Amino acid sequence: MIIDGLQCGHFDRQAFSSLKTAGVGGVVVTCGFWEGAVESLDSLGNWRDLVRENADIASIATTPEEITAASDQGKVGVILGYQNANLFEGRIRFVELFAELGVRVVQLTYNNQNELAGSCYEAEDSGLARFGKEVVREMNRAGMLVDCSHVGNRSTLDAIEVSEKPIAVTHANADSLFPHKRNKTDNVLRALRDSGGVIGCAAYRNITGDDYCKSIEAWCTMVARTVDIAGIDSVAIGTDRSHNFTPPDYAWMRQGRWTRGVDYGAASAARPGKAPPPDWFQTVEDMNVIPNGLRTVGFSEEEVDKITHGNWLRLYGETFRK
Amino acid sequence: MIIDGLQCGHFDRQAFSSLKTAGVGGVVVTCGFWEGAVESLDSLGNWRDLVRENADIASIATTPEEITAASDQGKVGVILGYQNANLFEGRIRFVELFAELGVRVVQLTYNNQNELAGSCYEAEDSGLARFGKEVVREMNRAGMLVDCSHVGNRSTLDAIEVSEKPIAVTHANADSLFPHKRNKTDNVLRALRDSGGVIGCAAYRNITGDDYCKSIEAWCTMVARTVDIAGIDSVAIGTDRSHNFTPPDYAWMRQGRWTRGVDYGAASAARPGKAPPPDWFQTVEDMNVIPNGLRTVGFSEEEVDKITHGNWLRLYGETFRK
Repeated sequence: MIIDGLQCGHFDRQAFSSLKTAGVGGVVVTCGFWEGAVESLDSLGNWRDLVRENADIASIATTPEEITAASDQGKVGVILGYQNANLFEGRIRFVELFAELGVRVVQLTYNNQNELAGSCYEAEDSGLARFGKEVVREMNRAGMLVDCSHVGNRSTLDAIEVSEKPIAVTHANADSLFPHKRNKTDNVLRALRDSGGVIGCAAYRNITGDDYCKSIEAWCTMVARTVDIAGIDSVAIGTDRSHNFTPPDYAWMRQGRWTRGVDYGAASAARPGKAPPPDWFQTVEDMNVIPNGLRTVGFSEEEVDKITHGNWLRLYGETFRK
Repeated sequence: MIIDGLQCGHFDRQAFSSLKTAGVGGVVVTCGFWEGAVESLDSLGNWRDLVRENADIASIATTPEEITAASDQGKVGVILGYQNANLFEGRIRFVELFAELGVRVVQLTYNNQNELAGSCYEAEDSGLARFGKEVVREMNRAGMLVDCSHVGNRSTLDAIEVSEKPIAVTHANADSLFPHKRNKTDNVLRALRDSGGVIGCAAYRNITGDDYCKSIEAWCTMVARTVDIAGIDSVAIGTDRSHNFTPPDYAWMRQGRWTRGVDYGAASAARPGKAPPPDWFQTVEDMNVIPNGLRTVGFSEEEVDKITHGNWLRLYGETFRK
């Protein structure tokens, strides 16, 4: 079984079907980027409908046991997540409410600073702000996993320190392997390792680089080098794959409502549009080459299990409400 | 005429009547602290009703000319302001909409970091964030005055630099005269001076200190010392006076919805509740001693006019939409 720590886009029956074929038993989906509380409730409602309409091949999973059960029944376990904390709208008490509605993973910031923390794209990362500290502790209590993808390195280190539970970087790579604002420095990766956290290695070309996209062996080599930094218990998969994404989706994701200008997100003026998927990852079904790719670069069966699903299941068990 | 750059609380007929007696012809009122867009629209609606019900002694003023006209007619000109940018809810296009609805003064942050900037109460001030730069320029274009009270010193310096129009610190004092997180460093005050900005000297005990609260002469001495730093064209009045404030109002102002804990705002654990007003400022009507107090400490008539209203009118003329 593969668990993908982060995907996004417009899921449909085809997406679930492809994930099944790829051997994906659990996936954290992106229920929102910039959406506030009411819009995030809309999104939860839509996700419930979508999963209900595809109940033969998908189910919402709120615990590691439910992920395993879904996978055993030939379904994709859908873990509800947000790539921003806007769903809370500055209200500490909303954390518990969204947890009760099934949300299990929330990223502290998306691409912009907010009331919680600094983003990787800001000129200056403030570190965890006062509300951010409150939210991290409340997520611990309410049973949600703190995600520091897109969050600045300084804020990420603060979150690791403030959190009473290990945290995740669901979809990013090592900055020392491919330098990019979205990727994490070695000291962040070591702090993740020392605190029991997990990074999901991304397969999004803009933050992976062309070299590691050339073949499954090349990408698995990157994973192996990430393990060298963060340790075998702290590295997993978070492809950042998007389903049915169109130019308006990129505009929403990057510019949202915060600017009338152009923002490239993880892309650049030189390559502004949709990044081509890695050469080995043309279709979602291609994810099924990952386990063997990991074996090819030298991982044992036990290590392959940890990277493909075991580390996520362990972390979810330590952080998700029961 | 006195213009007070910032008051807050629950205004009523008595408040307007007292302000009239005090010689206040214009006052920036606080329409919100933590309120989002819809709540802020509610507040605008309530303010329109209140002013309409007291149309014989109050009117909403959106230009310097309307303030002067209100004052000439024996009314208090009510300038609509917010002590936070939550009314925009992260949407750049809301700036223009709220400007069109009459809002003229918006503070970039209240006591917590947000998407725009760092607050004076955060451990680290990020400086102006990406959305903050967008909003400052959009406020310039839409005709709103940027207020950096409660904003961190670094973010305030950034705002002065990024803004194409002079900015305000509507209610604060010089940190070199009374050290407090809410007060501004001399380099901020000099940057305000050099850019045509204005600081409104506060008469809120927690950020003024007991010594400058002892008498009107003492408070006016503080004003004179502020003029020594910021110059005669950049110092005005922003008392921070609150009307009909009760303990639940303090809880809302300080804790809002961001924490279940206790936050003291500008107060402290040692003196947590309502700060006693300055000895000379027991009632709102007492503001009428300010002009003569300024004369007593040596200001000329021309200087008294600048401090009591001229500097605000000049700055409003440079920043408010026509």
